[in-house]
Amino acid sequence: MNFGSDNCGPAHPAVLDAVIKANSGYQASYGADTVMDGVRAQIREIFEAPEAAVYLVATGTAANSLALSCMAQPWDTVFCSEMAHIQRDECNAPEFYTGGAKLTLAGEGDKLTPEGLKTAITSWVKGDVHVSQRGPLALTQATENGRIYTVAEIEALTTVAKQYSLPTYMDGARFTNALVALGCTPAEMTWKAGVDAVSLGGSKNGCMGVEAVIFFDPSKAWEFELRRKRGAHLFSKHRYLSAQMQGYLTDDLWLATARMANARGAYLSNRLAEVEGANILYEPQVNMIFATLPRATHQKLHAAGAVYGLFEGPLDDGDPNEPLLMRLVCDWSISEAEIDQFIAAAK
Amino acid sequence: MNFGSDNCGPAHPAVLDAVIKANSGYQASYGADTVMDGVRAQIREIFEAPEAAVYLVATGTAANSLALSCMAQPWDTVFCSEMAHIQRDECNAPEFYTGGAKLTLAGEGDKLTPEGLKTAITSWVKGDVHVSQRGPLALTQATENGRIYTVAEIEALTTVAKQYSLPTYMDGARFTNALVALGCTPAEMTWKAGVDAVSLGGSKNGCMGVEAVIFFDPSKAWEFELRRKRGAHLFSKHRYLSAQMQGYLTDDLWLATARMANARGAYLSNRLAEVEGANILYEPQVNMIFATLPRATHQKLHAAGAVYGLFEGPLDDGDPNEPLLMRLVCDWSISEAEIDQFIAAAK
Amino acid sequence: MNFGSDNCGPAHPAVLDAVIKANSGYQASYGADTVMDGVRAQIREIFEAPEAAVYLVATGTAANSLALSCMAQPWDTVFCSEMAHIQRDECNAPEFYTGGAKLTLAGEGDKLTPEGLKTAITSWVKGDVHVSQRGPLALTQATENGRIYTVAEIEALTTVAKQYSLPTYMDGARFTNALVALGCTPAEMTWKAGVDAVSLGGSKNGCMGVEAVIFFDPSKAWEFELRRKRGAHLFSKHRYLSAQMQGYLTDDLWLATARMANARGAYLSNRLAEVEGANILYEPQVNMIFATLPRATHQKLHAAGAVYGLFEGPLDDGDPNEPLLMRLVCDWSISEAEIDQFIAAAK
Amino acid sequence: MNFGSDNCGPAHPAVLDAVIKANSGYQASYGADTVMDGVRAQIREIFEAPEAAVYLVATGTAANSLALSCMAQPWDTVFCSEMAHIQRDECNAPEFYTGGAKLTLAGEGDKLTPEGLKTAITSWVKGDVHVSQRGPLALTQATENGRIYTVAEIEALTTVAKQYSLPTYMDGARFTNALVALGCTPAEMTWKAGVDAVSLGGSKNGCMGVEAVIFFDPSKAWEFELRRKRGAHLFSKHRYLSAQMQGYLTDDLWLATARMANARGAYLSNRLAEVEGANILYEPQVNMIFATLPRATHQKLHAAGAVYGLFEGPLDDGDPNEPLLMRLVCDWSISEAEIDQFIAAAK
Repeated sequence: MNFGSDNCGPAHPAVLDAVIKANSGYQASYGADTVMDGVRAQIREIFEAPEAAVYLVATGTAANSLALSCMAQPWDTVFCSEMAHIQRDECNAPEFYTGGAKLTLAGEGDKLTPEGLKTAITSWVKGDVHVSQRGPLALTQATENGRIYTVAEIEALTTVAKQYSLPTYMDGARFTNALVALGCTPAEMTWKAGVDAVSLGGSKNGCMGVEAVIFFDPSKAWEFELRRKRGAHLFSKHRYLSAQMQGYLTDDLWLATARMANARGAYLSNRLAEVEGANILYEPQVNMIFATLPRATHQKLHAAGAVYGLFEGPLDDGDPNEPLLMRLVCDWSISEAEIDQFIAAAK
Repeated sequence: MNFGSDNCGPAHPAVLDAVIKANSGYQASYGADTVMDGVRAQIREIFEAPEAAVYLVATGTAANSLALSCMAQPWDTVFCSEMAHIQRDECNAPEFYTGGAKLTLAGEGDKLTPEGLKTAITSWVKGDVHVSQRGPLALTQATENGRIYTVAEIEALTTVAKQYSLPTYMDGARFTNALVALGCTPAEMTWKAGVDAVSLGGSKNGCMGVEAVIFFDPSKAWEFELRRKRGAHLFSKHRYLSAQMQGYLTDDLWLATARMANARGAYLSNRLAEVEGANILYEPQVNMIFATLPRATHQKLHAAGAVYGLFEGPLDDGDPNEPLLMRLVCDWSISEAEIDQFIAAAK
Repeated sequence: MNFGSDNCGPAHPAVLDAVIKANSGYQASYGADTVMDGVRAQIREIFEAPEAAVYLVATGTAANSLALSCMAQPWDTVFCSEMAHIQRDECNAPEFYTGGAKLTLAGEGDKLTPEGLKTAITSWVKGDVHVSQRGPLALTQATENGRIYTVAEIEALTTVAKQYSLPTYMDGARFTNALVALGCTPAEMTWKAGVDAVSLGGSKNGCMGVEAVIFFDPSKAWEFELRRKRGAHLFSKHRYLSAQMQGYLTDDLWLATARMANARGAYLSNRLAEVEGANILYEPQVNMIFATLPRATHQKLHAAGAVYGLFEGPLDDGDPNEPLLMRLVCDWSISEAEIDQFIAAAK
Repeated sequence: MNFGSDNCGPAHPAVLDAVIKANSGYQASYGADTVMDGVRAQIREIFEAPEAAVYLVATGTAANSLALSCMAQPWDTVFCSEMAHIQRDECNAPEFYTGGAKLTLAGEGDKLTPEGLKTAITSWVKGDVHVSQRGPLALTQATENGRIYTVAEIEALTTVAKQYSLPTYMDGARFTNALVALGCTPAEMTWKAGVDAVSLGGSKNGCMGVEAVIFFDPSKAWEFELRRKRGAHLFSKHRYLSAQMQGYLTDDLWLATARMANARGAYLSNRLAEVEGANILYEPQVNMIFATLPRATHQKLHAAGAVYGLFEGPLDDGDPNEPLLMRLVCDWSISEAEIDQFIAAAK
């Protein structure tokens, strides 16, 4: 009964099989392995972007920070939501990698709006040497609250950015969960909607630890390579990153694991609604549910060994009926039986 | 016939087995996995250091840069050899992670001497606000030229550092190759000889990509954790780093692979001496050989498909007898047959 | 009729006299001049802080950034108001000097409240390696909107900071304007109220370009000296900074110029109230007035050559009655006659 | 008898007169003052560079660090001499401002040679992501040892740099001392000889604290402005920097003070040769003399109150005949009488 995060579950066996298969003989190091050649071609095909620059790193924070550092000068500000992973969960890694760029929080909540973005951008006067200069837009798909930008919403945001000549980065740690929920193509969700660079998360969706960074305009390729090396994120035995991504993309495994996780999320959401006192925030769209449950129910769940994010407290002391906020994440491997067990414990 | 680097070969099957074994069920993320508990205990035992702070990262550059950034202020200078990996091969990662510390090259060649170190340290006047402040000593064991500091040599260097109240970091990318060559204990080669922090390399010696960073004084532990996260080097599915290290340390695999690599290095060195015109630089002590061969011999080797580092050129044009510098590295997996094949091609 | 900023006016003649007086013979450079000895003693006496570390720099941004970089680690967040100079007007200098620390905006407007501060601090969970770590409180006295924290308000804020073991920095670019308005002592407005470090602005109040940075706990002294040199803010001919500050502090000139500027501010505010359509925001407490005037009135003022900050527009096009926001600053040298002329032009 | 540095002496009265003259009425701040308009035009004329971007800062370290940060990426290495001020005397400011670029020391001593530079450049393999990337050449004119590059020597160095597509920066802290010694034009010593950017020192040659930074290709202008502000080096009351530079350049004062300093240097050098046991290193070409004197002579000089740089010691203990290294600098204001007094004390 572990709903702590989609990084608490195991990797998919097919990903490990690809790693084992790659573990034979000699390979050029530092990204020159032949496995990477295949991965690069595969990602370009999936994104319908034959010129794209494609790189692998091992963590989502590395993907975000390195990509943004190619798009923001040290004197710039990135525009993001107040819930953005780059703002809330990366211990100043974006500031570190950009050399001190600022993050401007555009509006409230996890989803940016064109109006909020416009207000944030124009809050910094263009051409004034005293202020932070306008830098890239960063949006997370799916968001940190488990919601999705529609293609039209993405386009509306990048349109605002482009009005001010600003590029857009998409944090795609849960890219595929959003993609299968929307039912669009990777190209439609990214460059066709005005996105300039995106990360394609693997770690949360069946891999051990790999994320692709994709620049649709390859002019930043060499700078990214230098930044990756200087950030100590260039793997010597790179084939093991390549192989994970290869296994992940082969036979549409990435889509299958995301569909599985989303389906379990929907199932859990439906079943959670049966629990007395449950109040589900936002309409769950991928594999994450934010909800409140009465303190007494949390106590039962903890007693039963359930693991999940509890954002309010204390657990042990207070009104048993007080609603406390929780986050539940279904990874690709969770079973309906575990969900049923969780619901049973809550009842 | 690949002698390009010890990062071109495969991981040891036992390391992969440990990864596969760890790929089951749920685990706390970000280093709180139970596998890491075992690894921490194991490393503390191996180093006879029950209080040591032990962390894992995926690359040697990350290990070096993060460790040094806990030991050097941005206004300090690190003291290292002119051949040091941190100076020659990390694209300014140490400067990046330390926030702009300088590297002072102490003497010539790959091995520091107490005299050279003392001269370098005293070249920066203590307490003068205008100059780089004296920071940590960084030495590589085994060195970038495949040589070893004896325990006495290490102690002589750390003694100089301590005279100036400076800490010592050991880049142990090839720690185990040196250890088995010296036949001493990890404690003797590190903290008993005055080393304050060390990296224990796994990637070059049988793992896919994992290095341990060990601080014998744990007071820097929390700072290291923050720097690792901020540097984007904290793995979410950390169990896969832990498992590699677990497999590596179990049943003395790490010692076995290093012994194997060193033995092949000795074999290659002996056989290379048979080749006409071969001139072996330094006495090979671990798994690396620096040598010159006539251009014509290099041409034969390349024609036969041999892979190795050629540092002088051009290969195709010039006096066939001109000696050109090469580096040959034997990883744990190379066979005597491949060496024989290489020698045959050279003859 | 220049109300653009208190940095548009001239330096006080007595400050220049001190500079001329210091321009004779030889002096040790880099802060070891004898003039600085006197300044240090004078500031310690004024602040009743015999142990304080006292340094001079030439710009307010340097004072803020260097001081904060001694108080915030790169992985920390500074807490400040959304109007703070360090947030709005320094082109990411605080981020640069701290090595990438974040600024968390605590509440709305120019004045922090204990509740807003507490909410901001607790928004970052202590001891969580993923989030920005809690760093110093930074408040501006007088604020960017020309308002003042009372001593009790300062104490209430630093009390919250201390509850979380966080230090407090006061940006005192207009320290003296606030001081004379409150009628308290420098000690009461700073360390007695819980402030750990403060800048004492000279540039806006009669000097050419000098700010003192004062640490009441001198343990950061050497770090500040290193950061100042590394930031290229240590003057070789430091005597010219010292002399300005000496002239500024002698015979209470600093108090006199601030009183003059505040008095002119009050006079301007009173007279502005006579202008039809004038709407004065906040109660002006020092030498700055924020007000709206109808567009038509702004047009008349511009035609008459008045200089001031106009924050809304366009000036030339739109409803003549639409109120547009302006900022008026009285520097120490502005005359009542100029104010009268300004009011006449507005009528 | 102060030969400590050319920053120990006073500013020239004409510079202060210009400051006093500028201290009247209102001026736009942050470099938009009308005095700066004149200075910009004057410098462009002096350098025969009508398009040049011209900026003022207050310290030589700021000039060097800011200029280099516009020319070197964080993953680059700057090439300089082992005696370069940026290497020896700036407490890692260049590393700080460039975001962690490395300094590669090209050859021995204070003067670079084309061969040494070429060796240094080619020591970093172009296009290898693992190594520091090749960045700008930085040379100091006059050098830190008081020597001069001829125009031909400068051209020979920049020619090597250009072969590798690298730009050249000239640290001109003592630009004018070199200029008048060579008897060439500013254009001949800079852009006509291949220099891309230069600092024109004022602080050591008659000003209080001002240096111009000149980019002959103005494409870096806006980046420099942002870096200057972000580095906290943009003066609010900028007119006081402008006025110093204006006074300095008017009526060829800058040339006159440099000639005066150089003449005193020559006089001192000649007279020093009379002192028994004096051994003058390098041929003094500007206003600096490096020489050894017997310990006993140093003792006499110190007893007489002479101030200068003593680089070896101890002063008080040891063989009275042992030669100890000293540096003597003549600033523009030193008199022949003081030199005579110094020589008398040494005899």
